[in-house]
Amino acid sequence: MGVRAIGGNTAVMPWRPGGKARSLASPGMRTQHRRGEGRAHDVRRLRDMIRAAVQGGSYPGGQLPTEAELMAAHGASRATVREALSLLRAEGLIERTQGIGTHAVVRPADEKLVEAHGVIRPDQHSLLNRRTRPRLLDRSEIAAPALVADRLGVPAGTPCLRLEYVALHQEEPIWLATNYALFPEAARLRDSPFVTDWYALMAEAGVEFGQSEFIIGAEPADPLVAAVLGIAPGAPVLVTEQTIADAAGRPFDLAFVHIRADRFRFVSRGTRFPGREA
Amino acid sequence: MGVRAIGGNTAVMPWRPGGKARSLASPGMRTQHRRGEGRAHDVRRLRDMIRAAVQGGSYPGGQLPTEAELMAAHGASRATVREALSLLRAEGLIERTQGIGTHAVVRPADEKLVEAHGVIRPDQHSLLNRRTRPRLLDRSEIAAPALVADRLGVPAGTPCLRLEYVALHQEEPIWLATNYALFPEAARLRDSPFVTDWYALMAEAGVEFGQSEFIIGAEPADPLVAAVLGIAPGAPVLVTEQTIADAAGRPFDLAFVHIRADRFRFVSRGTRFPGREA
Repeated sequence: MGVRAIGGNTAVMPWRPGGKARSLASPGMRTQHRRGEGRAHDVRRLRDMIRAAVQGGSYPGGQLPTEAELMAAHGASRATVREALSLLRAEGLIERTQGIGTHAVVRPADEKLVEAHGVIRPDQHSLLNRRTRPRLLDRSEIAAPALVADRLGVPAGTPCLRLEYVALHQEEPIWLATNYALFPEAARLRDSPFVTDWYALMAEAGVEFGQSEFIIGAEPADPLVAAVLGIAPGAPVLVTEQTIADAAGRPFDLAFVHIRADRFRFVSRGTRFPGREA
Repeated sequence: MGVRAIGGNTAVMPWRPGGKARSLASPGMRTQHRRGEGRAHDVRRLRDMIRAAVQGGSYPGGQLPTEAELMAAHGASRATVREALSLLRAEGLIERTQGIGTHAVVRPADEKLVEAHGVIRPDQHSLLNRRTRPRLLDRSEIAAPALVADRLGVPAGTPCLRLEYVALHQEEPIWLATNYALFPEAARLRDSPFVTDWYALMAEAGVEFGQSEFIIGAEPADPLVAAVLGIAPGAPVLVTEQTIADAAGRPFDLAFVHIRADRFRFVSRGTRFPGREA
């Protein structure tokens, strides 16, 4: 039984752009869909799988299989394959060159979340291992705004260093970070050369830390963030709020980081110890 | 020195929608910007801080401070405050009611990544603690497509169970998940009642696992994903590719999960052991 088992082969595009949520299936409706919906689900699933293959580097040299090969490998109709590829082209993930075929535009860097936290030494080839350089937007002392003060547990107006930069990899912007750091750490971060990445800066400034917390979400890039990162306004960005605390648990840095979703993904691993979680 | 120190007070909107990346500052240009750019950066930074306060529940009852209070707390001009609020309204995060003020539309659930991995028992109030119910879209046996087979280390065409559902919380769709599970686990997952969430299903089906890996990214919702999740096409969704392995390290499930970014964020914590990372 192939992937297309629950769908049809109609060439109709069943999507309703701008539509509201619709109930796609009642609880008892397991393997039957209206023809158009089943077809649309097939396109979405195939798109997810091809995207995963492209982003994960499964296609040698970034060269995608032919339509016929994709049809065979996924048990899909030609129309389904074409629509899935068309979605990925619209997203900017792949490009088609007449006479040559379809290839990946670029792969995102898949970086271990623990390395992004700065709690382990990054792999040699990691983007997080001194392989970016900062384009500094601001490094100035300001009075901590209310939210920053609240998060860091100090009175509003406490002096802090705002350190804002764009992380460039091979001259391409990857993320935009705004850090708000308290003193005394701020003095070291202000006076040390900022040459590669944030953790290298911290290390070279002699700023030790004990814990890093991320809240990871996604947002549409507003026009300014889009311009800074070189993406289209409205394109999705990963947004992390990071709080860094010293070894005693005192938070001394709050950062907002806007990361190009087409260039970066987090990899996280959880191991289960059956005795432990009960 | 207030937040507005490096910006101006002009009422001009300096953004250029649809613009390409521009160099916003040379390395030596630390605290000076052209008036319009400094102002736009101020709006962006204030937006980030108000968003963090709204999403983090810092405003009691979700009621935002008045414009005057925000100006005072952030050392910002009225125009900057208004533009920041306007961005958050456009994003759908806050609403303004004439005569009443501005309030948060909804807060995302901030869920611990380790709970999302299923490796620790979730907090009592976590969305991940049997507080969703599935609207089943598909639970049928298919031949594993090439990508699935590759990721799970089996020959293409190996039978697998495709289990696809929308997770509802208080009747609202939060995520859309497509799981591809190998046998023998698939038989248990196929035959057990699916009542709340995936980990509850696994537990009730007697499916043990040892490890869970996420690749976390963000994408624009395509029209079908948008319709299923009740969001606008193009709105950002968090996308995770999850691989679940048994206690011996054999992967038996691959899942693609599309999560509403306006309803869900991941919280991750890293602790540093200075002796360990060298």
